[in-house]
Amino acid sequence: MTFSDPKDSRQLLARDALDPLVRKVFLEVPLPSLRDNRGDVDRVLDLLEKQSDVRNPSVPLGMVRHLSEVLYESRGPLTVTLAVKESSTEVIDAAAGNQVGMNFALAVDLGSTNLVFYLLDLHRGVVLDESTAENPQVRFGEDILSRIHYCEREEGAAELQTVLIQAINGALAKLLQKNGIDRRHVYAVAAAGNTTMVHLFCGFSTHRLCREPYSPVVNRLQICPARDFDLEVHENAVFYALPSVGSYAGGDALAGILVSQMHRAEKFSVLVDVGTNAEIVLGNRHWLTVAAGAAGPALEGGVVGCGMRAAPGAIDQVRMDRKTLRPTWSTIGRIPPRGICGSGLIDLMAELFLSGVIDERGKIVIGAQGVVERDGHTAYRLVPADQSGTGTPIDLTQLDLDNLLRTKAAMYTALTVMTRQAGLSFHDLEYFFVAGTFGAYIDPEKAISIGMVPDIPLARYRALHNSAGVGACLCLLSNAKRRELEEISRRVTYVELNVDGDFMPLLNAAMFLPHTDASQFPSVTAKRFS
Amino acid sequence: MTFSDPKDSRQLLARDALDPLVRKVFLEVPLPSLRDNRGDVDRVLDLLEKQSDVRNPSVPLGMVRHLSEVLYESRGPLTVTLAVKESSTEVIDAAAGNQVGMNFALAVDLGSTNLVFYLLDLHRGVVLDESTAENPQVRFGEDILSRIHYCEREEGAAELQTVLIQAINGALAKLLQKNGIDRRHVYAVAAAGNTTMVHLFCGFSTHRLCREPYSPVVNRLQICPARDFDLEVHENAVFYALPSVGSYAGGDALAGILVSQMHRAEKFSVLVDVGTNAEIVLGNRHWLTVAAGAAGPALEGGVVGCGMRAAPGAIDQVRMDRKTLRPTWSTIGRIPPRGICGSGLIDLMAELFLSGVIDERGKIVIGAQGVVERDGHTAYRLVPADQSGTGTPIDLTQLDLDNLLRTKAAMYTALTVMTRQAGLSFHDLEYFFVAGTFGAYIDPEKAISIGMVPDIPLARYRALHNSAGVGACLCLLSNAKRRELEEISRRVTYVELNVDGDFMPLLNAAMFLPHTDASQFPSVTAKRFS
Repeated sequence: MTFSDPKDSRQLLARDALDPLVRKVFLEVPLPSLRDNRGDVDRVLDLLEKQSDVRNPSVPLGMVRHLSEVLYESRGPLTVTLAVKESSTEVIDAAAGNQVGMNFALAVDLGSTNLVFYLLDLHRGVVLDESTAENPQVRFGEDILSRIHYCEREEGAAELQTVLIQAINGALAKLLQKNGIDRRHVYAVAAAGNTTMVHLFCGFSTHRLCREPYSPVVNRLQICPARDFDLEVHENAVFYALPSVGSYAGGDALAGILVSQMHRAEKFSVLVDVGTNAEIVLGNRHWLTVAAGAAGPALEGGVVGCGMRAAPGAIDQVRMDRKTLRPTWSTIGRIPPRGICGSGLIDLMAELFLSGVIDERGKIVIGAQGVVERDGHTAYRLVPADQSGTGTPIDLTQLDLDNLLRTKAAMYTALTVMTRQAGLSFHDLEYFFVAGTFGAYIDPEKAISIGMVPDIPLARYRALHNSAGVGACLCLLSNAKRRELEEISRRVTYVELNVDGDFMPLLNAAMFLPHTDASQFPSVTAKRFS
Repeated sequence: MTFSDPKDSRQLLARDALDPLVRKVFLEVPLPSLRDNRGDVDRVLDLLEKQSDVRNPSVPLGMVRHLSEVLYESRGPLTVTLAVKESSTEVIDAAAGNQVGMNFALAVDLGSTNLVFYLLDLHRGVVLDESTAENPQVRFGEDILSRIHYCEREEGAAELQTVLIQAINGALAKLLQKNGIDRRHVYAVAAAGNTTMVHLFCGFSTHRLCREPYSPVVNRLQICPARDFDLEVHENAVFYALPSVGSYAGGDALAGILVSQMHRAEKFSVLVDVGTNAEIVLGNRHWLTVAAGAAGPALEGGVVGCGMRAAPGAIDQVRMDRKTLRPTWSTIGRIPPRGICGSGLIDLMAELFLSGVIDERGKIVIGAQGVVERDGHTAYRLVPADQSGTGTPIDLTQLDLDNLLRTKAAMYTALTVMTRQAGLSFHDLEYFFVAGTFGAYIDPEKAISIGMVPDIPLARYRALHNSAGVGACLCLLSNAKRRELEEISRRVTYVELNVDGDFMPLLNAAMFLPHTDASQFPSVTAKRFS
């Protein structure tokens, strides 16, 4: 999966597949003469047509003046910058001499919690650098729904948009300074996010996103000027938001499909993108369905008392010695633990179950090692106060476990309903892709142990790492990839799972570890009693 | 020629040929539902594709917000306004309910002397109203060259642009008020003018227009937002400038070709557009050449002492009784004469020649009736002081006659060289079109009499009236006509006549009335000695 992680491979595309959203063409424009009474701009466009595959590029009025002046000063050698727009190509810059190398872009993963930035060289087709920042909207509301409510205030939406744009401009400025690049050479910005994040970015009303029938303002926003968003890049730079499918399946999830290439395979695959919501995609080259569920909160620092986001100090892995029942754990950033993030919670629940500290119903076995009383509730103490980064113990309460059980059951039920509706069994799946940073850390074996995901060979599980960010990069580097993504957005059908009559019985059946029907998890049964 | 004059026929196109630059489409948009999770904008665009031939229209960011809001308020019925852009169609407005009838446009003939305005109903495809105003740039320079010089001053170009736009906004406001139309329902403006006028309108540098190699900034300016020019119309209205071919052949001349349809005929025709410069087009469906000459000044109020523009008080027709040698004349506006305009000058010279008051060399015959001495120069007194609107006599001096002789000789020579170069004789011409207001008033018989235009059957002479204005109207009413015009602009070849070795000898031979070779003008010889 090197393809999917820019850290692994800074060149995301084969060199010959490079066909960026913005490109620069060098021209040796003939001087005007008495025999050639074409206008300056006509002369440039004629040559452009001859030398490249661009037909009838559009030239805005300001660019007409600029082209003519630059051409007069340069006396011939000219670099023309072209941006692909909806159904045309537009001249967005012109400079004297050969400047084709000065062509950069920014890709943004608009996570509701974290923003990830990729600085791209569109000429060479590589990721130059990247950085991460917390989404500043978090301070207006941890989860998406509270931000939508914040937007109901006067100027609320403008405020959320402003802090987001400022964060992007700030991160970009740092990346540019570090790499010695002028912001006037940044000609394109692409952003992938869930539907609400894209609405918040664009300043669109989110009012109807959380109200039946949950209709977005737009799913496929067209390429538009970056200046409409006050992005501090070239004044004629373009902005592209990865398309979404309804309120629930955002560009981040669709980017996952693009990166996984499941939409081109003959065999079926599943893709799970766990964020604030969990999106599940099922399909192959013939059809694609997407469903959404509220699987996320318990795994993203909400709901669970000891939960936290995947940030420094978060316990992301837990192991338990089967004999001594003593736990070991690792934290993000290798600093004293402050809480447990999603992958850590799944690890912990699996280890507690496999070690017999919790039973099949997810209940803590009173008297088992590590079990304590806290504020009148039964809890498992993973980290004592003296080892904790906060000075207080890190405990997983029965309430937390109940929430985790519901989350894992909801995920498994959604997967079951979707595959059943398609007449498939889990064993028909070629791959089970897990997108998002969560996907990079989750241990499929542990997720199987608690019955969250199906008991299929581990080799079929594939982490897509930050597919949202990679998808945004690909859309900047390749018009073919961008069109492929748009085609995906037209093909994906949204399915509402709750209306399936089998949903509730199946959910109840999944409220056990790993499942009431243990035969669905043969590998777990083998392990538990080993 | 009813086709060419909007006064004659307010419907310029067959109803079924109507395909305007901006059109409105009425849609009954389905309401969003749980089963339909398309975005508001996607839902509108999908329906638009189904209901019309528009594919992938572009939707600017502001229009995304507006569309969504209007749709929510209207609960279904929606009118979408679409403007054709360079290689795409753009949604430029959206309103609740059925508003397809509210779709207007302005066509402007950007004459260097006079501006003519046409208010169009793009829905019904008719000219609603028209008006005329003096070009306010006249006070910065009567002729184009002096305005180009004015532009060399700081802010000179901006000043010329501003007064022009103000005049257009003022004229439009009057037309709108008179016809009870809101300016927010004016979605398109088209302008036809010579290359310099279009440069001045756009605020482009005219510096190189009058310097070798006379290269314009642009010949084919693309459709752009009207707000770029501060035109007081709908905020998303579009502007179209008719294309030109080099510095000399402007959109006004090309509009003449479009209106004449000579570019589609198998037989050859000539088109002459006499303005400040005279443009001559020769060709047929296989090829088109254009040449330019400074024929105009003498006929447009410059150079000739008693000359004036075709304005109220200008003598536009002159007749002379062959026996009594007493002149009669008519004036524009039927008010006392203040001078003589182009058609009047041609009439007068022809009558003086046919009556023997001037000889074959164009010299005034001393002692002939009406001949006077004025400030030491010989002159012919057409209007005595007591009948003149200025209180002073209107005299045509020998100097004026010399200038007129040069003008007519230059025109005839240009026509001769062009047809010869093509291996044609004047008798091969199917039509001889005369464009411009000048063409509407000139009497071909008189122009033949002085040897200005060839001695071919009078029925072949066709006045095109205001073909520049009509061409601008056609480009607003029909995308096919607009593309036809652009195709013409690509086909026309500019020819420099002065470089032809025969030019000077031919010019000298034409400096006689009607010509040194009288056999070229058999009808004149017959008349003179009748």
